[in-house]
Amino acid sequence: MSRTHILAVDAMGGDQAPEMVIAGLEIATRRFPQARFMIFGDLAKLEPLVTATKRLRGQATLHHAGDVISGDMKPTAALRLRDSSLRRAIDAVLAGDAAGVVSAGNTGALLALSKIVLKTIPGIDRPAMAAIAPSAKGDVVLLDLGANVVYDSRNLVEFAVMGEMFAKVVLGLPAPTVGLLNIGSEEGKGDEILRSAAATLRESPIAGQFHGFVEGHDIAGGTVDVVVTDGFTGNVALKTGEGALKLVGELLKSVFNSGPFAKMGYLLARGGLKRLKELLDPRRYNGAVFLGLNGVVVKSHGGADAEGFAHAVDVAMDMITNDFNQRIRDGLAAMDQALLAESVR
Amino acid sequence: MSRTHILAVDAMGGDQAPEMVIAGLEIATRRFPQARFMIFGDLAKLEPLVTATKRLRGQATLHHAGDVISGDMKPTAALRLRDSSLRRAIDAVLAGDAAGVVSAGNTGALLALSKIVLKTIPGIDRPAMAAIAPSAKGDVVLLDLGANVVYDSRNLVEFAVMGEMFAKVVLGLPAPTVGLLNIGSEEGKGDEILRSAAATLRESPIAGQFHGFVEGHDIAGGTVDVVVTDGFTGNVALKTGEGALKLVGELLKSVFNSGPFAKMGYLLARGGLKRLKELLDPRRYNGAVFLGLNGVVVKSHGGADAEGFAHAVDVAMDMITNDFNQRIRDGLAAMDQALLAESVR
Repeated sequence: MSRTHILAVDAMGGDQAPEMVIAGLEIATRRFPQARFMIFGDLAKLEPLVTATKRLRGQATLHHAGDVISGDMKPTAALRLRDSSLRRAIDAVLAGDAAGVVSAGNTGALLALSKIVLKTIPGIDRPAMAAIAPSAKGDVVLLDLGANVVYDSRNLVEFAVMGEMFAKVVLGLPAPTVGLLNIGSEEGKGDEILRSAAATLRESPIAGQFHGFVEGHDIAGGTVDVVVTDGFTGNVALKTGEGALKLVGELLKSVFNSGPFAKMGYLLARGGLKRLKELLDPRRYNGAVFLGLNGVVVKSHGGADAEGFAHAVDVAMDMITNDFNQRIRDGLAAMDQALLAESVR
Repeated sequence: MSRTHILAVDAMGGDQAPEMVIAGLEIATRRFPQARFMIFGDLAKLEPLVTATKRLRGQATLHHAGDVISGDMKPTAALRLRDSSLRRAIDAVLAGDAAGVVSAGNTGALLALSKIVLKTIPGIDRPAMAAIAPSAKGDVVLLDLGANVVYDSRNLVEFAVMGEMFAKVVLGLPAPTVGLLNIGSEEGKGDEILRSAAATLRESPIAGQFHGFVEGHDIAGGTVDVVVTDGFTGNVALKTGEGALKLVGELLKSVFNSGPFAKMGYLLARGGLKRLKELLDPRRYNGAVFLGLNGVVVKSHGGADAEGFAHAVDVAMDMITNDFNQRIRDGLAAMDQALLAESVR
């Protein structure tokens, strides 16, 4: 078995951990019967859970970790816990025992630990956090989502390269289109950082896929496959969109519960409404990813259920089996050569 | 008739102008039978339209303006047109002939012209663009929406003061709550500008209404009545939320058109679905406002219909009749005195 099919799992992170994590992995084994899972956490809790599974117990190894990083622990405090389930899982990636890590735990701790332990891929200045969001034209990749509040135009270009590759590997698009998020689509809009990043992308190997500037409504509109922005704006945009979808969902629920006719109406349209609900289901979009690190790092939502956690495992496995990080290295090298040739000309 | 009830109207701005504008004003006369409207534009087009109205013709004066600012004209070019309907309408506010202006025309031109002609209220560094968005707990004020890409913590504090007063006057809330948009709700989150603005607001006269930091999902969640942010983030957030709502609307439409049962389902739940559609209707949220200028300046959406334009007039009239700008001056003076006392202590 190649090491590219081994995933390290932090079993203690997430609101319903470790039960939710083990149940999620059991679901994942159906899709990845060849994968192996290194599961880190409190053995006393994990052993009976894993023993009770049908398939997972044959694909898992258990590794004790005595410390737990709570959801509200500061990254600096989390860094000091040498025997946390999260730290041990990341260490397994560093040691080459696993190709990636999945955790539903503390986001800040996961980012800080994976940055410090795994470090960025040579040529990548800062890692980015990416997620998938629904749109009128299929799934869209949005990044950065909060890994960077300080950034420059080179970072945005790197995010574009990584996002484009992520869309290829995880969404299966042959030539994903890329847009830079701005407050207008005209060339002169936005600050110098945005305009400089756009100029670089227009001369880059992905110039043919670069759509230029896009606006907030283009995310759900599906104007491009990859929306690139800084971490502050991306974090606000993702959460604003999620909030708007949640609002409509709640309002719809109250409409269909408002009386017997409305309830009957729901039953008649149920098939389509269920597909709509599934399409917009936050669990489908579970699995934010830290791109640009030496190893695949996937964050499942802290409130995810087993199905959501299994989806985060899907994303990690897609990246691992498609050798995502090597392709990022190749993409960056091609970009740097093209830009070098451009500047020499 | 006091001048506070006279509104200057740019009749030539907007996709369906001037017909849509005149039809919108005719609707507005029903709500404001005492108001007077100074209508600026091409007299040859306006005269027959206004003559054909029932009520508006008795409340309107027509003023010829020979130039038209197109939707894609740059603000610098728009500034050079001395006889545009937009310029003449703003000039009427400067001259004291009208208390405010409404336009469905070029946003950048409206902002640039009203800033240069009307100037900011003494004590306000930069004007802000505000709009109303739907939430789970009623309407929410969001600002800035793109008037400022460059900003500092004092600007954010001024936006908070203006937004709080806007929520009082336009939403009718006695003590609106205020939040600063950030990528986490903990005190240490965000950059120095955000943390400094939060610190000032915690010591300010509106400290009791200041909720601290809020996140993207808090906008539609209705966590606070007023969400304060910089123009770049606010513009992206507003458009992202609108895009998400539009996506669900389109998906719902296709669900209910997917077959005879679904169509019947729609009919049975029609009452509630229509109320939901009305609640989220972009026209209800039409009327972005430039706050902090010497005069009330309201921007209707360029694609608005007559009902939407009438709503923008509503917002302008609410601000005029409630003497919004004087209350902003008073609010700023109180804030500055409190902060001065604080710094002297």
